[in-house]
Amino acid sequence: MITGPGLLFVVSGPSGAGKDTLVEGLREHRPSLRYSVSATTRAPRPEERDGEHYFFVSSADFERLRRDGGLLEWREYNGNLYGTPRDYIERSLTEGYDVIMKPEVNGALAVKVGYPDAVLIFLVPDRFSNLRERLLARRTETNEEIARRLEIAQQEMKFIRRFDYIVVNAQDRPQEAVRDLEAILQAERFRIHRYPDDSIRRVESS
Amino acid sequence: MITGPGLLFVVSGPSGAGKDTLVEGLREHRPSLRYSVSATTRAPRPEERDGEHYFFVSSADFERLRRDGGLLEWREYNGNLYGTPRDYIERSLTEGYDVIMKPEVNGALAVKVGYPDAVLIFLVPDRFSNLRERLLARRTETNEEIARRLEIAQQEMKFIRRFDYIVVNAQDRPQEAVRDLEAILQAERFRIHRYPDDSIRRVESS
Repeated sequence: MITGPGLLFVVSGPSGAGKDTLVEGLREHRPSLRYSVSATTRAPRPEERDGEHYFFVSSADFERLRRDGGLLEWREYNGNLYGTPRDYIERSLTEGYDVIMKPEVNGALAVKVGYPDAVLIFLVPDRFSNLRERLLARRTETNEEIARRLEIAQQEMKFIRRFDYIVVNAQDRPQEAVRDLEAILQAERFRIHRYPDDSIRRVESS
Repeated sequence: MITGPGLLFVVSGPSGAGKDTLVEGLREHRPSLRYSVSATTRAPRPEERDGEHYFFVSSADFERLRRDGGLLEWREYNGNLYGTPRDYIERSLTEGYDVIMKPEVNGALAVKVGYPDAVLIFLVPDRFSNLRERLLARRTETNEEIARRLEIAQQEMKFIRRFDYIVVNAQDRPQEAVRDLEAILQAERFRIHRYPDDSIRRVESS
């Protein structure tokens, strides 16, 4: 009947909730799903590749992109800049591809302002206390950074009502959360407000 | 985190859109899904069993049920009465079971009034002209009844915007619609408004 343009899915939630692993699992199941790569001025971690995990750019390049309206949202964290390039997302949606992104909570809310049709999914750990464990386990932050992230996580939970869905990422059942996300991606396509009037008239008269 | 009480799913749409086959397919995939059996005063068709397809009741019994507030919705069609017993649905939802029902379009709208939380799914054939073929194929209506049903179907399409989802039942790919319905059943559980405030606070402080 209709497929219309693609849908934009925004997976967010506190740092340490497991966004990266989950979105990776989801992309394996849905190869047609496009992933919006963020731009950042921070240095790559050892396992990170440019253009895959992030676009690693200079401060000058980032500033130029931002000034030209090329970023859908951007923010500063720990002295580094992060942003979402607008171009790739808009082109993909127009071509009918679904796009997924995983910004911080503030970024997710900014995206919703720009794209009210975006589907916002808040990922929470099954227990808040697991956040600290996960952050410790990945060994990419200092103790001070971890303490700061946990404080931010508490703040971020206050915005949960602005999201469309909550998905719980249980530490011992990660596949379950991937399946839950898949169901949301599939079901959102059929929400009544996704159908423009003319598509309904087309069925009526066919 | 939460499971809360069960969810009520209402699959409706024009007669001949394939509701029966679809809901049957869905129940095979999700055995825990409870099915709300309607009561009717009409005579059983040869293949229909009491308590499975309908509760076949006398006009007097139907009237008593209706008068005692035992029906969630009811309607008259072709001189026969049809209604949805309230008791079984409410008990199942309270016990945490999801319930599915497949009333006529008017009935679906009546259910939404009684249960604003009900999820209304409008099933449409991929082509409206297939309705006539399907009605002819099942050989349970006279030509006059078929003409009447098609007229009703045109009317029913006008209420499509009051539903939550539209699912297209393509004649040559019935399994696709079953999967689409399954995704909706799964995804609805995670909609933000299904989470009461205290469940969110529980995560925050755990």
